[in-house]
Amino acid sequence: MKIEVWSDFVCPFCYIGKRKLEHALERFPQKDQVEVVYKSFELDPNSSREAHSGDIHDMLAGKYGMSREQAMEANRNVGEAARAVGLNYDFDRMSPTNTFDAHRLAHFAAEQGLSHDVTERLLQAYFTEGVFLGDHEELAKLAAESGLDRAQVLDILNSDAYSENVRADEEEAVNLGVRGVPFFVLDGKFAVSGAQPDSVFDQALERAWGERPALTVLGGESAEADGCADGSCAVPQDKPDNRAH
Amino acid sequence: MKIEVWSDFVCPFCYIGKRKLEHALERFPQKDQVEVVYKSFELDPNSSREAHSGDIHDMLAGKYGMSREQAMEANRNVGEAARAVGLNYDFDRMSPTNTFDAHRLAHFAAEQGLSHDVTERLLQAYFTEGVFLGDHEELAKLAAESGLDRAQVLDILNSDAYSENVRADEEEAVNLGVRGVPFFVLDGKFAVSGAQPDSVFDQALERAWGERPALTVLGGESAEADGCADGSCAVPQDKPDNRAH
Repeated sequence: MKIEVWSDFVCPFCYIGKRKLEHALERFPQKDQVEVVYKSFELDPNSSREAHSGDIHDMLAGKYGMSREQAMEANRNVGEAARAVGLNYDFDRMSPTNTFDAHRLAHFAAEQGLSHDVTERLLQAYFTEGVFLGDHEELAKLAAESGLDRAQVLDILNSDAYSENVRADEEEAVNLGVRGVPFFVLDGKFAVSGAQPDSVFDQALERAWGERPALTVLGGESAEADGCADGSCAVPQDKPDNRAH
Repeated sequence: MKIEVWSDFVCPFCYIGKRKLEHALERFPQKDQVEVVYKSFELDPNSSREAHSGDIHDMLAGKYGMSREQAMEANRNVGEAARAVGLNYDFDRMSPTNTFDAHRLAHFAAEQGLSHDVTERLLQAYFTEGVFLGDHEELAKLAAESGLDRAQVLDILNSDAYSENVRADEEEAVNLGVRGVPFFVLDGKFAVSGAQPDSVFDQALERAWGERPALTVLGGESAEADGCADGSCAVPQDKPDNRAH
């Protein structure tokens, strides 16, 4: 079973939702047969890569036309939701930025088999350590801590590599009708929108598992004969399990 | 809709099946909404990387305990099937080899967005031009012709990069019960085993399209409010379509 997760590195409910999914998977008997794939989504693709002058409370207040007090109250509520899943958000130090380059880095990490490590490291850095993800040096440092080559990461960040991967994920989200994140898609069939209650994640895993498609072979099997005949090439039958390298 | 194709570069029915799928897609009205992904499969993972001393007729005869004449007759039949889809196989020049490195190269190409170009180039080289795919220099030359960086490809081939990707594809094939290639899986739900008649490909596309899953959202939509509230972070509604970079 495959779970695709659209999320952003500066989206507080994305990190919370990530933990909720992880906790649900810990409870899920078939967790070893579940693959989780992180996909790119920018909440605000037009945001600046530069550091903001004010803090995140001011930014939020300005963006949504609320008072600084209202913004702080909203952030306190999100902070409580984070604490409930074991995350200690530090809103006073959060430094919002455009996340396009962080997403490009995540795609490179995915190719190196380090998607989960880098995704977790970036979220942790942004939400709990006040790291500014708009800085290539900071991104490279976090990447290196997750096992990537620092110099190679800097080269990638200084190019436009993996831009197409980010855009393709975002286009897929648009086609799916995603309007907010986190957005979880299980086997292309079931979706969970937002950091829903634990029971919703449990239900989603169970339903998607129960209804995972059986493969219907059309036109009959071939490949029953040795070698290449009748339209296909069969695995030599004298060594069917000897496929190691 | 996603079509996954397990195939090998030295599998004569794989190239034929690739053409059959391509022809079926040309006839398919929703072809623009179909993504084809090539997956690795080695027919004979224990085969040597070195060039064989005899030709492919001798090799086939030895492998399946038939006479050279019988092997030539079998190859003639495959050649006719190839010609029927517009491919001109040159059995007298084919130079079988272990394809693990060719598959590693294909995974690198996929990351660079050149999976289809490189896959086609390797198949064409092996089946119609007598190119020995066991030679890193030859692989790098073909990769460069498809738009990849020759030196970078050589570095990759001389390392063990992308080995895990090849093995993961092969493990997935084993889990699906694949016993021969080509093996086509449509949206994880319908399979076509071998280079089946055109009507089977047409039927597979139509059925998979007709039965593609609708997304069931569990736990209700969130992200309706502006900003981050109620468990998700919504795309700012003042610029919903302004997501270009």
